[in-house]
Amino acid sequence: MKLSKRHLKTLREAPKEAELVSHQLLIRANLVRKVAAGIYEFMPLGYRSLRKVENIVREELDRIGDQEILMPGPNPAELWKESGRWYAYGPELWRIKDRNGRDFCLGPTHEETVTDIARNEFSSYRELPQTLYQIQWKYRDEARPRYGLLRSREFLMSDGYSFDRDEAGMDVSYMNEYGAYERIFTRCGLDYRIVEADNGPIGGSRSHEFSALSNVGESELAHCPECGYAATLERAECVDDEPVQEEMEELKSVYTPGTKTIEDVCNYLHMDVKKSIKALMFVTYDDELNPAEYVCAFVRGDREVNMIKLVNALGIPEHYIEFANEDEMGATTGCVGGFTGPVGLQNCKIVVDSELVGTVNMCAGANKEDHHMTGVCYGRDYKGDIVTDIKVLKEGERCPKCGKPIIEHSRGIEVGQIFKLGTKYSESMKTFYKDENGNDCVYQMGCYGIGITRTLQAIIEQHNDEDGIIWPISVAPYHVMITVINPQDETQMNLADKIEEELEKAGVEVLCDDRDERPGVKFKDADLLGLPIRITVGKKAGEGVVEYKLRREGEMTLKSAEDATKDAIDLVNAERFGL
Amino acid sequence: MKLSKRHLKTLREAPKEAELVSHQLLIRANLVRKVAAGIYEFMPLGYRSLRKVENIVREELDRIGDQEILMPGPNPAELWKESGRWYAYGPELWRIKDRNGRDFCLGPTHEETVTDIARNEFSSYRELPQTLYQIQWKYRDEARPRYGLLRSREFLMSDGYSFDRDEAGMDVSYMNEYGAYERIFTRCGLDYRIVEADNGPIGGSRSHEFSALSNVGESELAHCPECGYAATLERAECVDDEPVQEEMEELKSVYTPGTKTIEDVCNYLHMDVKKSIKALMFVTYDDELNPAEYVCAFVRGDREVNMIKLVNALGIPEHYIEFANEDEMGATTGCVGGFTGPVGLQNCKIVVDSELVGTVNMCAGANKEDHHMTGVCYGRDYKGDIVTDIKVLKEGERCPKCGKPIIEHSRGIEVGQIFKLGTKYSESMKTFYKDENGNDCVYQMGCYGIGITRTLQAIIEQHNDEDGIIWPISVAPYHVMITVINPQDETQMNLADKIEEELEKAGVEVLCDDRDERPGVKFKDADLLGLPIRITVGKKAGEGVVEYKLRREGEMTLKSAEDATKDAIDLVNAERFGL
Repeated sequence: MKLSKRHLKTLREAPKEAELVSHQLLIRANLVRKVAAGIYEFMPLGYRSLRKVENIVREELDRIGDQEILMPGPNPAELWKESGRWYAYGPELWRIKDRNGRDFCLGPTHEETVTDIARNEFSSYRELPQTLYQIQWKYRDEARPRYGLLRSREFLMSDGYSFDRDEAGMDVSYMNEYGAYERIFTRCGLDYRIVEADNGPIGGSRSHEFSALSNVGESELAHCPECGYAATLERAECVDDEPVQEEMEELKSVYTPGTKTIEDVCNYLHMDVKKSIKALMFVTYDDELNPAEYVCAFVRGDREVNMIKLVNALGIPEHYIEFANEDEMGATTGCVGGFTGPVGLQNCKIVVDSELVGTVNMCAGANKEDHHMTGVCYGRDYKGDIVTDIKVLKEGERCPKCGKPIIEHSRGIEVGQIFKLGTKYSESMKTFYKDENGNDCVYQMGCYGIGITRTLQAIIEQHNDEDGIIWPISVAPYHVMITVINPQDETQMNLADKIEEELEKAGVEVLCDDRDERPGVKFKDADLLGLPIRITVGKKAGEGVVEYKLRREGEMTLKSAEDATKDAIDLVNAERFGL
Repeated sequence: MKLSKRHLKTLREAPKEAELVSHQLLIRANLVRKVAAGIYEFMPLGYRSLRKVENIVREELDRIGDQEILMPGPNPAELWKESGRWYAYGPELWRIKDRNGRDFCLGPTHEETVTDIARNEFSSYRELPQTLYQIQWKYRDEARPRYGLLRSREFLMSDGYSFDRDEAGMDVSYMNEYGAYERIFTRCGLDYRIVEADNGPIGGSRSHEFSALSNVGESELAHCPECGYAATLERAECVDDEPVQEEMEELKSVYTPGTKTIEDVCNYLHMDVKKSIKALMFVTYDDELNPAEYVCAFVRGDREVNMIKLVNALGIPEHYIEFANEDEMGATTGCVGGFTGPVGLQNCKIVVDSELVGTVNMCAGANKEDHHMTGVCYGRDYKGDIVTDIKVLKEGERCPKCGKPIIEHSRGIEVGQIFKLGTKYSESMKTFYKDENGNDCVYQMGCYGIGITRTLQAIIEQHNDEDGIIWPISVAPYHVMITVINPQDETQMNLADKIEEELEKAGVEVLCDDRDERPGVKFKDADLLGLPIRITVGKKAGEGVVEYKLRREGEMTLKSAEDATKDAIDLVNAERFGL
C-alpha cells in the first residue's frame, strides 16, 4: 500500500489534555481523533490495529465454542427495570428517549438483554451450557472522560454471557473464558496480571480482573511476590491483627482540646495510633436518590476505609453513598465532627471493621467537642450493626493467602474482567430452564468483558519509546514500512515495488512510504508509527542492497533485498499470531 | 461445527406482524429476534451471514483504495447545526442529550462528521482525492418501523465519502464507487437494477440507487425496456405532451353543482380529462415548524403530482409540507375545496407543471362553490410562480431518454445509493483545501451508502421457496449441512466426522446436525436454514455412501463420501466469492 495514496497527518506535539504517553501517541500517530469529550473517531491506521485486536478476541472466543451474536445499541428500559439496574446504575447509564417518549439506554453492558434471550430462546437442561458473546460499541456517560480511550464514553467491548444449570457448570464456563482471556492478552503482547476483583455493580459472587501493568493505570493492585496472590485493592482481603489481651479499663471521657485528627489525639494522649478508633460519617440514598440513612464506619486509627468493601457491606451501589454533612448528621445522631466515636451514637447504622472486634481500652471520639473517650471496649461499650472487613490492604502487610507480611502494591489498566454472576439476573428476570423432572430452575450465569479500545491503548502504553510506538507484530496496523529515500529515482522505486510485491504475496502487510518528503520526515514518521520492521531503500538500491531494522531493536543492518524480504516474512510468520 | 453444541430455535410459524416472506424467514430460521419496534438482535447464524455481507463490502471498497475509518455513534449537534440539517432533518433524526444536557444525534449518516475530518486533516490539493468509508450501526427513529430489517430503526450501513478538487475528479470517484457497488451486489447474489434517483435530504446534484428487484420493495421504479433508461419514480423525468393548438376562447364561469372531482366535472361538462387542471393545496413550514406559506400545485387533470419533484421545486425538506386545511387556506387565498383553480388565487405560491405552459381553453376550479372556469389559458389567465416538471411518469408513457412510449414500472428494495454532493457540505461547513496558488477552494464531495442489514434481507427475499431460504454460497452462514440420520450410530457419526474434517480442512464451513431429533425435523430445519449443500449420512454409511443435494436444485443423488466431499469443495471454491 502506497502511503502517498493514503491519508496520514502526524503531529510533532500532542494536545495538552493528553497526559498519558499512550494518549499522546494515539493522537500524534493519527490513530484517533477526538470528536467530543470522551468520544473519538478512528483514523485508517488506528482502525486497522483496533480490528486486529477485535479479531484476536473473536478467534479465541470462537475457539472455545462461544457463539457470536449482536444485541442492540439502544436497550428498552423495561428490561433494566426488571433487573433493577435502571435505578441502581448511576448517571453513567446514558438514558435516551425515542420519538414517542419511550425510554431506552445506550447499552454499557447487556446482562438484561441477554437474559431476555435466554428466557425466550432456551428452555431445557439439554441445551446447556450456552455461551453467547458480542463485540460491540458501548456507552458510559462518564462524568470526567479522560486518558483517551482508557476512560471514554464510547468504547468497543467484547461481552460474553454463559448459561449453566448449576454452579459446577458455571465454574467450567468461567474457567474456559479465563483461559481464552489469557491467550487473548498474550497474543496482544500485553504484560498483564490476573487479580481477584470486586463484582461491583454487575453483581455476582466472584470476579477476576485482567490488568495490564502500568504505573498510569487506574486499577490499584495488591499482590504477594511469594505465593502469587493478587487482587484489586478494592477487593483484597485483610488479615486482622489479633486484639491485644488486656484487662478492661473503665470508660472515661477526657479533655482533648483541638485534636481533630487521629494523629493529634494520639500525640496528645501519648498513645499508639493502633489503640485509636477512626470514624467516617456518610449518608446513603435510596433509588429515587432521596437520603435514606446515616452511616458511621469505624476502623482502627492506622487503617483506611475501603469504600468498595463498605458499600458491599451496606448492599448498595457505589453512587448511593457520600460523606455526610457533619452538622446535619450531628443533630440526628449526636456525632460531632472530629470527635465522633461509637459510644452513644444514635439513629445511624454503625459499621465496624472486623479487626476492632475484641479490642479493649481503645481511644475514640466522645461525640462531644474537644473530648475523647478512653477505655473503649468492643462488646461492652459499643457494637456494630454490621461487622466485616472494610479496610484497605496496605503494602508490607500479611498476605491473606500465605500470611507472609510482604504485600506489594502496583497499578494496572483493567483490560478485561470476568464475573460469576450466579442467579442475580436469572432470578430477578424470572428466567428458567426445565430440568430432567420438568421443574423450573434458574440459570447460573457468568459474564465476561474485554475493553477492546482500552486494550489497544494499553498495548501502546506498554510498547513505546521516546520516538513513538513499538507495535507487537500481532496488532500492528501494517507489518513492514518500506521507506523510499528518493521516490523520483526509478531504481529505488522499482526495488521498493518488488519487495512490496514479494512481501504482500506472502501475506505480509506493507506500507510503502513513497511520499515526496525529506528522508528525515519519513524516518521520524516511521518511528512514530512504529511498524515492527523497516526496510529502507536508498542509494544502494542499484546493488540490490537495503537497510533492515526492527523497530524494537533499533539496530540497522545492510542486507540484500532478497534477505531482507525473507527475514521479514519469517519474522512476521513467527509472530503474527502473537504466541 | 456440531449443531448439538449451538443454539438454534427454529419456528414453524412466524409472528403475524411479519408480512414479508423474508421477514418471516429471518425469524423462523432464528437469524434475528425483535427487541423493540424496529430494533433487532442477531442470533448466531444471522450474524454469520451479516458479517459475510459486511466483508464483501469491505473487500470491494478496499480493492478500489477506499480507506476504512470509524466515526462515532453519537454526533455533536454543533456539526449538524453548521450544515443546517439539525433543523432540516425530520423526527427520524434520533436526538439525545448527555448527562450535561449537551445535544447529540445518533448518526443516521455522517456527512457533517466526515466533513469536519476533512476540515481538520486535509489541507492541500496534493493530498486529493481521498475516499473514507466506515461500516457502522446507524439510527433512524422511524415513525412506523416495519418489514423487519428493511425499515428498522437500527441498521448496519457502509457509508463512504469522497473528497475531490473538482467535478471531474468527483465524477471519477463516483464511478469508482459505482463499479465497486456493482461487484458487491453481484457477489451477494442479488438481482438488482441501477436507477437514477433523487438526492433527497442528503442533497447534491446527481444520484443512483441500487435497487434489488422485488414486488414487495418500497422503491417504485420506472424503466425503458428499449434503451435501458431507469429511474426511481420520484426522480423519473416526464416528457410533456405538446399543447393542443387552438384559438383562445373566452374565460367563463360555469355552474357545475356537486362536481368535486376532476372526473365529476369532466363528465358533467363532457370534456376530455386532459383538458382539465387539477389543483392540490399545501401548507409549508419553516425550520421551527411554524407555518410558512400556502402552496397550490397545478397539473393536468390526468396527471398525479410527484411530491418529491414538488418539494425539490420549493427547495424544502420533504417533511416541511403537508396538505392544507382547505377552509383555513380559503380564508387567506380564496381557494374553495373541490373548486380551486389558478385564476384569482392570492397570497399563495403557485406551482405549475411545465406541461400546462401553452395550454389553452382548459377547465379549472373557479374558486367558488359549485363553479368551474372554462377557456382557461396559460399566460393570459394565470402564471406559475414556479414552473417545472412536478408530475409522475406513468407506465406506457414516453421514455425521457429514447422517447418510445413503453415505460414500465417495477418495484425494488433500495440496497445502495450513491450521491454527487458537490459542495453542499464543504461550503456550509467552510471546508477548504489550498490549490497550487495557495487559494482556498471547496471540495467536491460524493457520498455512498449500502444498507448492509437491508441487503441481507433483500437476499433472502430473492432467494427462497416454500420450504425456506436458499442461500447463495457467498453469504450463507455455513456452506454445507451434514445431516446425520442417527447420531447414536457410530458408523454414521464417524463418517460424518470424517467428511466434516475434510471439508473444514479445505476451508469449507460445515454445520453438522448431530442433534437427537427425528430425521423429519432435521430435514425441515435444513430446508428452512437453506445452507447451499446438504450431505445426508444415513444407513448407507457402512458402504461409505451418502446423499448429496443442492438446496437450490432439490434433486438428491447418492455419492461416495469422497465424491460428495470433493464436489462440495469444488462448488464452494467456484462460488465462494459470488462472482
